[in-house]
Amino acid sequence: MKRQDLVVLAALAALAVAPAACAADPLPSWNDGAARQSIVRFVERATKAGSPELVPPDGRIAVFDNDGTLWAEQPMYFQLAFALDRVTALAPQHPEWPTQEPFASLLNGDMKGALAGGERALGQLMMATHAGMTSDEFENVVVDWIATAKHPTTGQLYTEMVYQPMLELLAYLRANGFKTYIVSGGGVEFMRPWTERVYGIPPEQVIGSSIKTTLEVRDGHPVLVRLPEINFVDDGPGKPVGIQMQIGRRPVAAFGNSDGDLQMLQWTAAGSGPRFCLYVHHTDAEREWAYDRASAIGRLDKGLDEANARGWTVVDMKADWKRVFAFDRQ
Amino acid sequence: MKRQDLVVLAALAALAVAPAACAADPLPSWNDGAARQSIVRFVERATKAGSPELVPPDGRIAVFDNDGTLWAEQPMYFQLAFALDRVTALAPQHPEWPTQEPFASLLNGDMKGALAGGERALGQLMMATHAGMTSDEFENVVVDWIATAKHPTTGQLYTEMVYQPMLELLAYLRANGFKTYIVSGGGVEFMRPWTERVYGIPPEQVIGSSIKTTLEVRDGHPVLVRLPEINFVDDGPGKPVGIQMQIGRRPVAAFGNSDGDLQMLQWTAAGSGPRFCLYVHHTDAEREWAYDRASAIGRLDKGLDEANARGWTVVDMKADWKRVFAFDRQ
Repeated sequence: MKRQDLVVLAALAALAVAPAACAADPLPSWNDGAARQSIVRFVERATKAGSPELVPPDGRIAVFDNDGTLWAEQPMYFQLAFALDRVTALAPQHPEWPTQEPFASLLNGDMKGALAGGERALGQLMMATHAGMTSDEFENVVVDWIATAKHPTTGQLYTEMVYQPMLELLAYLRANGFKTYIVSGGGVEFMRPWTERVYGIPPEQVIGSSIKTTLEVRDGHPVLVRLPEINFVDDGPGKPVGIQMQIGRRPVAAFGNSDGDLQMLQWTAAGSGPRFCLYVHHTDAEREWAYDRASAIGRLDKGLDEANARGWTVVDMKADWKRVFAFDRQ
Repeated sequence: MKRQDLVVLAALAALAVAPAACAADPLPSWNDGAARQSIVRFVERATKAGSPELVPPDGRIAVFDNDGTLWAEQPMYFQLAFALDRVTALAPQHPEWPTQEPFASLLNGDMKGALAGGERALGQLMMATHAGMTSDEFENVVVDWIATAKHPTTGQLYTEMVYQPMLELLAYLRANGFKTYIVSGGGVEFMRPWTERVYGIPPEQVIGSSIKTTLEVRDGHPVLVRLPEINFVDDGPGKPVGIQMQIGRRPVAAFGNSDGDLQMLQWTAAGSGPRFCLYVHHTDAEREWAYDRASAIGRLDKGLDEANARGWTVVDMKADWKRVFAFDRQ
C-alpha cells in the first residue's frame, strides 16, 4: 500500500468512526420534527465556521422567558404559591391579618375570596411577603422554600417542574457560544437564588421584575432593604426595556410562551442578521396542561397569530417533546 | 549522572528559565510601591491554586467607577462636555433656545451663566441633549462624538484620557479570572458604545445612571424612545443598589476615586472572604490634576478618611504611576 492510500484509508476510517464518536444527541428529548430542525438550522447558520451569517461570539445573546417557557406556571404562578406559603409562615407576626383582607380569607383557606380583591389584593399580598426585609434575608427565605415546597398537583419540588427539552436547548445554545439569559415577569430576587443550579444561568444573567431597594447601615453593616414599592415590571413592553437596560444589546434568539413575551420576540426579530423566535405552545393536557388563547395564566393569543404570520417556530409540546419533565417516563 | 540527578537538574534549569519566560510584567506602568504590592498580594490570595482564601471563578467580580478612576474628569465631567457640544449641534432645531436659559448663555459661550441655574439648569441641559430620540439614534450620536471630540486642555481624544495603569489593572484582573464591571454615575448609554473598545468591558458589564425609556412602534419597527425623566441615579448609595440589581452578587474588589464611590467600597468590604478596596488619589498636578477634599468634581474627603482608617489601598498617582496616560512620555 502506498503512503497516499494509507492516508485515504485513515480518513475513511475516521469518517466511519466519527458519527459514532459524535453521536451524543444534544437534544434527546426533542422529536425530529419541524421545531427541532428549525433550532438546529438556526444554530448552524449563526455559528458554523464559514457561514455567511456567522454571529460573532459576543453577539450570541439568547433570552428566555421563565414561567411557562422554562418551568410550568399552572395551576398558578409558582411565585404566587411562594407568597401564599409566606402568608401562613408570617401570620404569627401579624395579629392584624385575621381581620384584614386579603389575608383573612387566605388564612381561612379561601383563596378565591382572597383574590377577589383583584390587582390591589395581589399587590398587598406580594408586598407583605416580598418587602420589609434585606436582600440577603429574602434570599435565605427563597432558598429554604424552593428546597422543600411541593407542587400542589404533581407533588414534585418546583425545581423539578422544569421542562427537560428546554434544559437541553439551553445547554445546546451555550455549547455553541450563546450567552443564555432569563427575561421574566417574575421577581428577579425570587429567581436568582436557584437559576444557576437549575438552569446553569448565573444571577447576572437573570432579568426580572423588581421592587425598590434602599441602602441602610444596620449594626455597622451596610444592607439593602426591600421596600414595598414597584421598581420595574419586566413584562410585555417592559421586556425590551429590561433587556436594553441590563444587556445593552439586542438578542439574536428569543423564547417565550405567552403574549407577555411578544414584544421581546418582536424586538429580537427586528435586528439584522440571523434571528430566531420560538413560542412554546402548551398543547399537552396529559403530561402538562393545555391552554392558550383563553387562559388567564400565560395567555397565548396575539402571539400565536404573529408567530404563524411571521413563520416563527411554534413548539407543539405534545408532538415535539418526547418527555416534558425529567420525572416523566418516556 | 543518575536519573534523579537529571530530574533535579531539569527542575533547576526550568527555574532558571522561568523568570525570563514569564517576565512580561502585567503592571508595567506601576512603580513598585505599597499600592502595586497590595494589588498583587490580593490577586494571589484570591486566585492562586491552594490558597486558603481562593475565590471561585464565578465569584471574582471587580467593580470600577469610571470618571476619575478609569478616565479623567477635569476640568469637567466628559459627559457634560458632550452635552455642551450637543447644544451647539442641536441649536438650529431649537429656535427658542437663544432666549431660553440655560441654552441662551451657553450659546453665547457663557458657561458660568448657564450653570448658574444649578441642578435645575443642569437637568434641563441633560434632558434636552440625552432624551427625545431612540436608543439606537443616541448610540450613533455618542459614537460620532467620541470619535472626534477633543479634550479642552490636552487636545487629546477623550478616549485617550484613560489611565494607562488602570487599563493594565483591568487586564491583569481579567487574566486572573475576574469579571470587570463599570459602576458609574455617568449615563449607561453614554458609556456602552465605547467601553468594550477602550476598556475591554462589554455593554452588559456596564452599570450606570439612566433615564426612562419606552417601547414604541415606528414605521412598523419597535424602537426604544428615551424619555426626559430620570430612571436611576447610580451614585453614592445608588451604587450598591445598581450592583445588586444588575449583577445580583457582591463584588470582591472595588475601585473608585471619590466620596460617591464610598458606599460601593463599603458594600464590597462588608462581604466575607478576601476583599480589596482601592481609591485613586489625584495627587499629580503636573501630569494630571491634583484635587481631593475641597473639589467640586470628584470630591474625596470622607472616603479618604475611611480608606486610611480601614487600611484600604490609596494610589498616590504622582508616586505610584510611572505614567498616567498612554501619550505621556515616561
